[in-house]
Amino acid sequence: MDEGSAPVTLEDVEAAHERIADVVHRTPLETSRTFAEMSDAASVGLKLENCQRTGSFKIRGAYNAMSQLSAGERERGVIASSAGNHAQGVALAGGLLGIETTIVVPKITPAAKIEATRGYGADVVVEGDIYERSYEYALERADETGETFVHPFDDEAIVAGQGTVGLELLEQYPDLDTVLVAIGGGGLISGIGTALKAHDPEIRVVGVQPEGALHAKPSLEAGEIRELADVDTVAEGIADTRMLETTFAVAREVVDDVVGVSDREIAAAVALLAERAKTVVEAAGAAPLAALLSDDSGLEVEGERVAVVLSGGNVNLTQHAELTRTGLGELGRYVEARLALAGWPTAVGDVVETVAEEGAELDVLERARRQSVDHPNRVPVTVGLEGSGPEHLAGVLEAVDELEGVSVLESQVD
Amino acid sequence: MDEGSAPVTLEDVEAAHERIADVVHRTPLETSRTFAEMSDAASVGLKLENCQRTGSFKIRGAYNAMSQLSAGERERGVIASSAGNHAQGVALAGGLLGIETTIVVPKITPAAKIEATRGYGADVVVEGDIYERSYEYALERADETGETFVHPFDDEAIVAGQGTVGLELLEQYPDLDTVLVAIGGGGLISGIGTALKAHDPEIRVVGVQPEGALHAKPSLEAGEIRELADVDTVAEGIADTRMLETTFAVAREVVDDVVGVSDREIAAAVALLAERAKTVVEAAGAAPLAALLSDDSGLEVEGERVAVVLSGGNVNLTQHAELTRTGLGELGRYVEARLALAGWPTAVGDVVETVAEEGAELDVLERARRQSVDHPNRVPVTVGLEGSGPEHLAGVLEAVDELEGVSVLESQVD
Repeated sequence: MDEGSAPVTLEDVEAAHERIADVVHRTPLETSRTFAEMSDAASVGLKLENCQRTGSFKIRGAYNAMSQLSAGERERGVIASSAGNHAQGVALAGGLLGIETTIVVPKITPAAKIEATRGYGADVVVEGDIYERSYEYALERADETGETFVHPFDDEAIVAGQGTVGLELLEQYPDLDTVLVAIGGGGLISGIGTALKAHDPEIRVVGVQPEGALHAKPSLEAGEIRELADVDTVAEGIADTRMLETTFAVAREVVDDVVGVSDREIAAAVALLAERAKTVVEAAGAAPLAALLSDDSGLEVEGERVAVVLSGGNVNLTQHAELTRTGLGELGRYVEARLALAGWPTAVGDVVETVAEEGAELDVLERARRQSVDHPNRVPVTVGLEGSGPEHLAGVLEAVDELEGVSVLESQVD
Repeated sequence: MDEGSAPVTLEDVEAAHERIADVVHRTPLETSRTFAEMSDAASVGLKLENCQRTGSFKIRGAYNAMSQLSAGERERGVIASSAGNHAQGVALAGGLLGIETTIVVPKITPAAKIEATRGYGADVVVEGDIYERSYEYALERADETGETFVHPFDDEAIVAGQGTVGLELLEQYPDLDTVLVAIGGGGLISGIGTALKAHDPEIRVVGVQPEGALHAKPSLEAGEIRELADVDTVAEGIADTRMLETTFAVAREVVDDVVGVSDREIAAAVALLAERAKTVVEAAGAAPLAALLSDDSGLEVEGERVAVVLSGGNVNLTQHAELTRTGLGELGRYVEARLALAGWPTAVGDVVETVAEEGAELDVLERARRQSVDHPNRVPVTVGLEGSGPEHLAGVLEAVDELEGVSVLESQVD
């Protein structure tokens, strides 16, 4: 390819769109007054790729790539490595195209993900303690067997397939000013950026990464791929250490900026999406909304039309519950407190009643073990409360503290 | 009105649709392969009224009723009583129409609901320990002040407004065979039934109620309103004791059948909607899906096109988390177990590692207090595990039990 010209073009994305139109969902674009008000944007459009088949956008690229394999390649089958959404995308694409697929997953992959992948018809091989080992094994096996290895992002057909999200955005949410897209390996943003920039170079394409996996920003600034030694983030789906050749070549042409968000901001975004938009999004999928709502990301969207791509919703329910509680804490709407009660059991009844009267939700109440050194004759109790904000929760704890025989010893708006 | 002719007509619903078209969302209709497969239906369409403005369908009826008030009535304002979705519907309708609204709520209404209602511009008055007292107070005050009392369901304009959901179903999901709608006071099903039956009397309109608030079934069978002495259900939004004159008169014309579902089936439906459809629904809103998936409801939908109305999504996040965990239990995907560990701390590390290797999610691990009488020298531990099904969880516990120094004493797939 020529220097400065990206390896994926609008035509590639449009061709991908035709190939996949009959099998993928055209996912909804829902506007949100709430998030527009919170961010001072003129309008916010949520692109619900969490409602895509297999629960993420990955089916778009996988199907686009695999539908272009030759008869011989199809015959020999496809192999991929993934502990996440790519696995299900490749598996479903294989099922739809009649191609045998093998997905190599690391040892501790949740059974639910393995079952979902098998449910789409893939053969699942457990190999390696960590993902990198599964990846190497899949490459080695492809060499031996002649199976086609389908990379999760570093592939022109994959990038073109993911770019179809951008074409749908242009139709569903015209005249947009800025699009926010999470970056793991960079496949999704490269594809979307290709589609949007070809339509209007003025559309701003902003990548979002967790602070604990912020490799694209230094890479694009340096003009060469930078790799992180390790990553640390709640957003497993985008916990990559680097972009690769294809995605870097495209991203440097089409990405205007990259911002970082904290894990706590991501958790708050997961909670707000559940509460306000009634939608279940995995941590990686919520990162772009976290950037929109962050006070610290440096992103300015006042008066703009902003598209936010919610890329996936594959999170198990106990993890989702944990994330939303962490998110409520970040929003000042969850507090844990230690109480010392005299006259238990009367006092514990009074606490429960007061919490209800003050309009808070009692999420946890535990008789604790550790006595307070200042109140060795009192019963130690831990409570977890959900409320409408820090002031509300402070008021609830004050009312509890004023009860006869009840002292609030410590509290922490998480 | 004539005996046998319903007090609400298709024309009323169509007029309502024109009045509200510019202010309410035409909520999405999403088809679900998963739920079609699980129920043997040919197709299942989810009508996402949980994504409606204010988080439920209630704005439709409230706006339709309030937009027809005279100048003098608007001047004197509107009053309503509600601890739930009706409050927010009336408040927003008032804000949009420039009508002052007062919502009377009982004492223990969550602060978040009060704030949301105030946020739409309503004046909130806390009065009464239980809802019935708030209701009486609102009626008394309306008598004194000349405010218009807006009933949550027993009102022709309210029923006509809720019926607009039916008109949208006809457009978004044509040729449907059966629609499933939750019944509290019966406003929603009366409206939807009116619209659908006028279009095609063959469309089957099925009401769904919790077993603990199953009043519509005996009422429609008896041909007269039956009232329950009390109700007991997790689905607060439809925990009514009876229909009233208007809704009963319409429902007896347009409802073909009513089925009951258990609270555990409702919780399972909440969990499946979060996991599979990525959508957050309150318990009342999930009841129709519970009926579709129930083995015991007696509902038969084989080969049919079935519309499922998800009426609301106003549930706080800690409650939603609790519901989904209960639901996972009902689905055989959550287990609590008691272990006795010798050689703690090595054994506890082995347990955590084994659970991960077996692909289960460790939701809870607690060092318990009570020693097993059979193992007084071992450390008691309680674990809560999420897995992909009863067999998977049984296998995980078996692997844990085989560990050196670990005994599984009791376990319960919830």
